[in-house]
Order: sequence, then C-alpha cells, then structure tokens
Amino acid sequence: MTRATGEQFALLTDLYELTMAASYFEEGMHEEATFSLFIRKYPPGRSYFVAAGLAEAVAYLESLRFREEDLAYLESTRLFKREFLDFLKQVRFTGEVWALPEGSLFFKDEPILEVTGPIIEAQLAETFLINAINLQTLIATKAARSTVAAGHRRLVDFSLRRTQGTDAGLKVARASYLAGFVGTSNVLAGKLYGLPVFGTMAHSYITSFSSEIEAFRAFARAFPQNTVLLIDTYDTIAGARKAIQVGQEMAAQGQKLRGVRLDSGDMAALSIEVRRLLNEAGLDYVTIFASGGFDEFKIARTLAAGGCIDAFGVGTKMGVSADVPYFDIAYKLVRYGHRPVMKLSSGKVTYVDKKQIFRRYDDQGLMSGDSIGLRDEALAGAVPLLTPVMAQGRLLKPLPTLAASREYFLQEFAKLPIQYKRLEDPSEYPVAISPGLQALQAQVEERIRRQELE
Amino acid sequence: MTRATGEQFALLTDLYELTMAASYFEEGMHEEATFSLFIRKYPPGRSYFVAAGLAEAVAYLESLRFREEDLAYLESTRLFKREFLDFLKQVRFTGEVWALPEGSLFFKDEPILEVTGPIIEAQLAETFLINAINLQTLIATKAARSTVAAGHRRLVDFSLRRTQGTDAGLKVARASYLAGFVGTSNVLAGKLYGLPVFGTMAHSYITSFSSEIEAFRAFARAFPQNTVLLIDTYDTIAGARKAIQVGQEMAAQGQKLRGVRLDSGDMAALSIEVRRLLNEAGLDYVTIFASGGFDEFKIARTLAAGGCIDAFGVGTKMGVSADVPYFDIAYKLVRYGHRPVMKLSSGKVTYVDKKQIFRRYDDQGLMSGDSIGLRDEALAGAVPLLTPVMAQGRLLKPLPTLAASREYFLQEFAKLPIQYKRLEDPSEYPVAISPGLQALQAQVEERIRRQELE
Repeated sequence: MTRATGEQFALLTDLYELTMAASYFEEGMHEEATFSLFIRKYPPGRSYFVAAGLAEAVAYLESLRFREEDLAYLESTRLFKREFLDFLKQVRFTGEVWALPEGSLFFKDEPILEVTGPIIEAQLAETFLINAINLQTLIATKAARSTVAAGHRRLVDFSLRRTQGTDAGLKVARASYLAGFVGTSNVLAGKLYGLPVFGTMAHSYITSFSSEIEAFRAFARAFPQNTVLLIDTYDTIAGARKAIQVGQEMAAQGQKLRGVRLDSGDMAALSIEVRRLLNEAGLDYVTIFASGGFDEFKIARTLAAGGCIDAFGVGTKMGVSADVPYFDIAYKLVRYGHRPVMKLSSGKVTYVDKKQIFRRYDDQGLMSGDSIGLRDEALAGAVPLLTPVMAQGRLLKPLPTLAASREYFLQEFAKLPIQYKRLEDPSEYPVAISPGLQALQAQVEERIRRQELE
Repeated sequence: MTRATGEQFALLTDLYELTMAASYFEEGMHEEATFSLFIRKYPPGRSYFVAAGLAEAVAYLESLRFREEDLAYLESTRLFKREFLDFLKQVRFTGEVWALPEGSLFFKDEPILEVTGPIIEAQLAETFLINAINLQTLIATKAARSTVAAGHRRLVDFSLRRTQGTDAGLKVARASYLAGFVGTSNVLAGKLYGLPVFGTMAHSYITSFSSEIEAFRAFARAFPQNTVLLIDTYDTIAGARKAIQVGQEMAAQGQKLRGVRLDSGDMAALSIEVRRLLNEAGLDYVTIFASGGFDEFKIARTLAAGGCIDAFGVGTKMGVSADVPYFDIAYKLVRYGHRPVMKLSSGKVTYVDKKQIFRRYDDQGLMSGDSIGLRDEALAGAVPLLTPVMAQGRLLKPLPTLAASREYFLQEFAKLPIQYKRLEDPSEYPVAISPGLQALQAQVEERIRRQELE
C-alpha cells in the first residue's frame, strides 16, 4: 500500500496505449523509443515547478506486469488477438530512466523524466507516469508557494477530506511535506511516509458537550500536553475567554495550554485580539493556529494585515491546487530507433531526442539560468540536472529518503532568486535552447514539413 | 480493489478524529450522534449537484476496523492510552445511514447523507465519507453539465492521465458514466466497474512510423473494425486527406473506417472542413471525434460555432472539475443524545437534527421545489428523498447497480427544468426550510446564544 505497484496498476492506462502496443506488435516494431515528460506552459501566476512523484513512477516501472485476470479482461473486450495477449503476459519494463531528483526546481519545457526502452514498454507506461508525476509536482509546487507566503511560520497539511480521492490524500501529504510543510493531519500518510501528524478537535467535539468550556476542560484532561482549543464554534472572542480560563486552570496544575485555533472570520483582526487577550492573561506561550480556506494568497493577505499567527493549517485549496488544478503536462515520443521525432500540432511543438537540462549559478550560488540541450552535449560552466535512475529495468541505487529529498528541496529553493518566487507577476526564469538542440530541431522539422505537408 | 475498504483505510482520517474519540472514550460519551453531510454553497455557475459516491461510503462503513499494525502505529505516536487503543480494536460501525440514492439531484444545504450511531463511530468516519462523496459528486455534477452542452452527442472520459491520483482516475470514470457519459479510456475502470472502454492511438504512434500514412495503414491492418485515425499530428487538413486515402483503401477491401479524431486547433472550423472532405470522398459514414481541452464550455462554444462533431473525448478539465475543483462540503454534528446541536461560526451555520428532503413536482412531472425538513415531518404533496441504507451497521438491501443508477440519473435529470441547467447564470432552484425545522433551529440558536455568548 505504500506504493502503487505496476502489478496492481498495469491496466490503469488509457486503452489506446494497448491498441498502439498491439499494432507495434503486429508490425514487429520493437526498437528503442525515448519519451520525454515535461510541462508545456506555465499556468497563470506560476513561475517554477517542484519535481515530485519519481518514487511512485519507479515503483510502478519496477513491478509492471499483466496478471492473468488483467489478460482475461482484455480478452473479454474482443479487441486483441491471442498472440498479443501472450506477448503482454511476459512484458516487463527493461529500459532506462533519467530524471530530476525529487525536490528539484524546474521550468517550462524542461524534461522532468525521460524513459528509453522498447517502444511497447515505454508507451504502456505513459498514462501512469503522467498521473504520478503530475499530481505530486502540482501539489509540491503549490505547497512551496505557501511556504513563501508563510515565511518562518509552520504549515500543516489539512486537506485530506477534500482531496480528489484517497490516493490524492496520501500524495498531497507527502508532496507538501517534501516542499517544506512540517506535517499533516492525515494519519495514514503519517504511518506510510513517516510524517509528523497534527490535530486535536473539530466543531463537532465542542457541540457534543453541553457547553463549550466543558468541552475545553475535557480535552485538556485527555491531552494535557497536546491541547489546542478550537475557539470559533460559537464566537471567537467569547471562545478565547473560555480558553484563557481553561489555560489558567491548566497552569494552576502545572500544565501548559499549547494553543488555540481560529477557523473562521477575519483572521487578522481576530488573531490580533486573541493574542492580546492571551498575553494580558499571562498566556504568552500559547500559540495561535489558524485554519479555514488558507492557501498562499490568504496566508499572505492575513500576514500583511498584521495577523498574529504562529502556524497555519492549509487545507483544500492547497490539496487540490485550487487555482491551478492540473498542469499542461505531456509524455511525448522524442526518438524512435535512430530517428529523432516530433509532432507539429498547433501550439504543441515538442523538443526532439534525448535531452539534458544544464543549470548555471551566479557567484553567490544563486540560480541564473538554464539551457535545454541534447543528452550528450556539454555546456561549459553549467551543471547537468537529469541523472540516470534506472537501467535495464532496475533501480541503479536506492532513491533518497523523503526526509533527504525535503532537505534537498529546501537547499535548492534557497538558491532561487526572489523575483521568481513572487506570488503574483513573478519574473520568468531564463531557459535557453542549446545550439545543438536548436540545430537538430530545425532539421527534423524541415524533414517533416517536406514529407508530410506537401 | 474495486472498493476502498474500512480495513485498508481506518487510518485514512484526520488525527483529530482519533483525539476526539479518545476524549469521548475517557469521558464515557457513547451516546448516539447524528452527523449530516451537505454542501454549504453553490460554487460559481453551479445550480445543482448529482449525488455520487454512496457505494464507496457504504463499503467503507461496512468494513471499518483497526488492524494490529494500525494500532501499533497509533501507539508509536505516544498520543493515546492503552485502554483507548484496546477499545479501538473492537470498534465497528454499528449505526444507521440515510442517504440520497446515487444519481439523485440535490441542492445547497440539503443533506446527501446522514449517519447516526455511537458518537465515536460516527465521528471517525467523517474524513473518509467527505472524501468519497465530495469527489464523485463533484465529477458527476461536472459531467452532467458536459452532457447538457453536448446534447445527443456521445461523451467519453479521457481524463486518467491528469486526474489527481489513481483513485481519482477510477472514480472519475465511474462518476462520469453515472452522469451520462458512454464510457472511458481508463482500462482498469472498465474492468472494475464494467464500463465500455474507448481508445485507438496517440501522436506518438504516428511519429513512431516513418510517415503518417504508413501509421494510418498499420492501424487499419491491426484493427480493421475499430480504426479512428488521429489526424492532427502534423496538420489536420493534410492528415484528413491521408485518412481519406486510407478510408478508401479500406472500403476497397470491404472495410469501414470508423472515424477520425481532431485534437488541436480551431475545432469548429476544422471539423466543418474535414466533414466536407470526408463527404466529398464518399466517406459520410466516418464519424468525427474531437478531444483536447474540452469541458462543457468548450463543447458549447464549438457546437455554437457549427462544429460537425459526433463525439467528444472529455479529459482533464472534467476529470479535475477544473473551474470548481472542490465543493464546500461538510459533515456536521446535528444531534447528540437527545439534544439537537449546531455551530454558529461566521458564515457557517448548519441546520440541526435528523432531516429529510421533500420534493414537489408540477403537473408535467417537472421538479418545482424542495423543502428541507425534520426527518419525522410529513409535507403534503411532497416526496421524501433520503432513504434508509444501513441499519445496525448492515446494508438494508443491495445498492442499485451502476447501470441502474445511471438510468435513474437520466430519468431524474430529465425532470429538472432547463432554467436550472444553463451553463452560465442558471436560476436558483427553490429550497425552503420547513416550519418544523425553522422552529427548532430558532429554539436551538436562542439557547446557544444565551448560554455561550453572554
């Protein structure tokens, strides 16, 4: 359950991957193909992406196989011949993968991952690979933006109830942690990925007691070291006064109320007033936690208005990346056999052949620009970013732990100059196309125009 | 794998469900609680909702239990006492569920589902139930809107690659079928839910051959009865001419080219021109399939511009409900023991107690208005919609099949007057609050204000 496997999910694919495979099989087309996974354009307001989902992609490729029950289902569709189904039975992924490590920053048109292998294997993986990389990259990017808005304040993933399904609930917890969140409310994600888990009470808890203060006292009895009181069920300020009373009762017993949580209303104004009331009552150590509709924009607005908030629960809007709920992400054939290939469909031109991303840094160590080049080019003074991850269907070395990938992200993100991190109207990070790739691109396009558009 | 189970997913919950449960346990609070699941407001442009996800919710409740490894994980968090973990071990859902059948239409504030049971059981289920109902209802609603735009034309779910995770990929296929789609590209969803599956080829297929027409011919060899040629890889009109040539070659062998697919460019203009070319060549039986960024809005625009399209592949924007990627959906305690309860948090007032939805129809059989009332009220001339689904933790009778729920949706949707179905600026369907509920609501609010806001 930790990882989706290729055995469980061999059929989690678009039917056309299988019909294409059947035709390749009939035509005897088994040459090596390279597919490139990349994001075609920036959604409004986005200016960078945080790579995530590679661990899932690799787990799938390592274990891809069709079970008897899958083949029986395919047979029942009456679309496929017996020989092809027999062939599918022994299909495994035997190719190679180059990829950006999880937590890397990347930009429009840059390949996140390139798969090379016999065309049927590399084609079959398309749907799952896009699905896995798209979601986690989408969420890690949104979460990174939230951390920019929050500065030093702590962020906790609160999104599970409204993520798009159970798998998304788990992946959102993982990807937001990768991008700097401190943990999640999602208990299963805590268990599977080793994340810190957070949470105390909902409004239903308060309303189930005959009075608000009795609910507060009961919780403090059960969790004297971990009490964060939700104070907005009836009225935030009246709730704060009762929390203070309970905080003082706890103090009299040598206990410390840990925090209060606001979940509705004018968060800046309420948090300022609640902070004042707490401090006046000698409870300056009690933290203020805020939740309810937060994303990077509401965090920034609330802090700009002077909100006294120590930590945020960031829920639905991050968990579905509400302003940008998908990326224009694609997995395109860029080479087949010895032939670099591309399509020309309007607005969707792709860069041909096996590629590499080259990154330059300035003398402060800040990122100053990238080039997309051919895999075997060498660009002086630039660092190549895609690294070999799998060869002959096997992982070359264990992937970094999630904690290590989180650390890597934090280091890399510190190297991205602030003009690219603005929440609105960010500058566009410079990405050039290398001379080698430009020349090859022009040559392939010329050949196709001559041949197909006469 | 067909259904998420409560055994797999007992920990797929927010931590606070468990800390609240621990406190209820310590306080000896085991009385019956009723929680109500509803959508608090219409997102922009939405005017109705299509209920979906009940089968998932029921499967979870029927099998909810904490395994040893779950309890061991909870113990490792050091938040919980041994007695509580022992108690959790034997927790099962023993309560009752009233719900709208899948495929029902409902409106703002109307309960989709009400759960009554010992408070710990009913509380623990919160996160999963919201997650399950939110996603499928979100997608069924978006898909229903797409069918309104498409009229009699067929719609196929093409969203898997960019749905938010694997679970969403499956649920989107299911929910869009429930709401009138004819099938999906998602093979695993086809297998699990018995859905028709569709798909032929991607651009990579075309580019892997040395020329476009050779790719077309190869596919026709492999699938003479199921050939839909993707014609926009290099240029749609040049592609159409090659498709016509292959269509004529097929005709000469007594075969019929089934269709062509457009995936980019000006869909209305291109489809008109392609239709003309096909008809002139005697291929009037060849259908035109369109995909690429379609949702209800692009379908409507394309058809309004005269697009000659027989079927649409509807992908990402439906699959993530891009304009409205979540609902403001909540699961709120409405009664505990003998006490109806509510919260007052700003802008988030909830209706108290066990409820029922009553629907009226006009003399043409069209829906004319609903009332939300108390469960045991009777409103003359109105049909109660929530039905008992589970009692004492057991399903009362098998849920309808997906095919039956789809049929039910189609019947119900035909009864919704068109002013509520407009894609933009729809009228607001009338939903009243019954006299009984109004009186109780006022009484409870008065009591709370007196007690908590002095």
